[in-house]
Amino acid sequence: MVAALQTETGKDGARLRLYPNPVSHTLREALAKLHHTAPDRVIAGNGSDDILNLLMRVFAGPERPAGMTTPSYSLYPILAALQGAKLIEAPFDRAFRLNLEAIADCGANIFFLTSPNAPSGVGFSTAQIAELARRFPGILVVDEAYAAFAAENAAELVAQFPRLVVARTFSKAFSLAGVRVGYALAHPEIIALLDRARDSYNLDRLAQAAALAAIEDMPYYDSTIARVVRTREAFLQKIHALGWHAHPSQANFVLVEPADADGRHGPDVAEALFKFLKRRKILVRYFGKHPLTRAALRVTIGTDSDMAALAAALDQWLKPALPR
Amino acid sequence: MVAALQTETGKDGARLRLYPNPVSHTLREALAKLHHTAPDRVIAGNGSDDILNLLMRVFAGPERPAGMTTPSYSLYPILAALQGAKLIEAPFDRAFRLNLEAIADCGANIFFLTSPNAPSGVGFSTAQIAELARRFPGILVVDEAYAAFAAENAAELVAQFPRLVVARTFSKAFSLAGVRVGYALAHPEIIALLDRARDSYNLDRLAQAAALAAIEDMPYYDSTIARVVRTREAFLQKIHALGWHAHPSQANFVLVEPADADGRHGPDVAEALFKFLKRRKILVRYFGKHPLTRAALRVTIGTDSDMAALAAALDQWLKPALPR
Repeated sequence: MVAALQTETGKDGARLRLYPNPVSHTLREALAKLHHTAPDRVIAGNGSDDILNLLMRVFAGPERPAGMTTPSYSLYPILAALQGAKLIEAPFDRAFRLNLEAIADCGANIFFLTSPNAPSGVGFSTAQIAELARRFPGILVVDEAYAAFAAENAAELVAQFPRLVVARTFSKAFSLAGVRVGYALAHPEIIALLDRARDSYNLDRLAQAAALAAIEDMPYYDSTIARVVRTREAFLQKIHALGWHAHPSQANFVLVEPADADGRHGPDVAEALFKFLKRRKILVRYFGKHPLTRAALRVTIGTDSDMAALAAALDQWLKPALPR
Repeated sequence: MVAALQTETGKDGARLRLYPNPVSHTLREALAKLHHTAPDRVIAGNGSDDILNLLMRVFAGPERPAGMTTPSYSLYPILAALQGAKLIEAPFDRAFRLNLEAIADCGANIFFLTSPNAPSGVGFSTAQIAELARRFPGILVVDEAYAAFAAENAAELVAQFPRLVVARTFSKAFSLAGVRVGYALAHPEIIALLDRARDSYNLDRLAQAAALAAIEDMPYYDSTIARVVRTREAFLQKIHALGWHAHPSQANFVLVEPADADGRHGPDVAEALFKFLKRRKILVRYFGKHPLTRAALRVTIGTDSDMAALAAALDQWLKPALPR
């Protein structure tokens, strides 16, 4: 990674004065190879937010509503509002299951489905996504920001469904959030429309070089991802051993519903634990505004020692009155 | 520059896993200082194309036409079309003078004026821009991609005119085209609107670091720019010595109307010289589609030896029949 960036910078930064390849040509070829598809089915973006923005811009507008499940990524409503597009919500049930009928018939011109979902971590099977792609008559965007941590994904379905778009990012699994690279897989006609709407030079030289270096170092990332998945499963066992509910996660985080020493749970309990952990400098996320998340905390999977510290803190929280 | 990028990359690329500062905080502060203004009057973009795109997105639409002088930057019509906005053209005259009346009364909600203009190189005075800002009732964007090479610019007017936006880029004067950094100066309310429309992380870590390093190395760039201006003026003298017309340039290029050995000029002559130079691997730009440019070539100012090679080639072209 460091060597690739040095090469791209050049002696005295000389290469930085040259415009980047406008279509991220080499990166698209590498991504196409990675997904066993053709380069004209790939577009690279300045983060996957750039991709989501382009999709909303091309396929939503005053007469063309956008759809999303709720709760999910807070960017979708912002992008829909920018386009003057009506936003249609397909609410999740308590278990964050995919409501196929509701989405298929929602009337949106473009629908954004985060899979695995955030903040629940719940993943949807390739078969479910295929069924939805078959039934939903508009553009179906599967935002797979966390797919690297999941057992299944929808990338292979793109060849089969011309209105299906799969969006990915280098920020999570490749730990390149600082570099801003995302991409999408879709039918060549959709890729061409997105290409027309994007900035001519949406990826700078260093971002293209960093993403390429990451792809070439895939075995390293595979082992990092496998480590996260193992740690996630161990953490879920710990949570279940406490008798707490956690949604089954296919992502690099877990949505946990804590109970206190007396077995009570709910928003007050979640918020109390959030504050308890914060005082110990253990940071988790609390989404207190939504009924489906306000009794829960989202825990990002860290290193084994991060998770051991969290487990110890949870034990301590549950036994505050005991002498130590 | 190289050291700044290495620091930002971190050991083994460790810093690249962290999200960039979403508002490019330090860079905005440095740009504000550079322009003796406040950070809330500055926004940074992924190239100035990102800035132009945001401006069009926020201020143009089906009921809000965009305006531009013609000929000028080919991106404006593309961005207007993406917004479904009508494009109003204010054509230049033969001397590429600013037509104040035509622009002031054109009815556009947002008007894009490239100053110095491309491809003519003609610059507009601060007084002219101020007069236009006073009279044009919409958002006036002065796209100052080439302003570093000009005697005057409009940056200081932003404090005075709340509907004036000045857009800049690091691609030309700072030779950082490969990194993609641009910015705009405007009233805080305009900056806030653009901030709401932009990608949350529109500049990656390395781009922010490179731009900051460039600002800190201003004396180096000042001397580079001064060298370009000197070389430009020497080249203009050469062109005038040949008896050719060239538009007075405030940019890092010159629009030259060549005449052949018999004193003829026009599209055929320009195209013939273009091909003659290309065979000698001297690359200039030919804009054959527009009546105001089709008899001319745009020559980018290179190193002194680049320009000497061009001058020699021009002499050779004018004396093809003479024995050498």
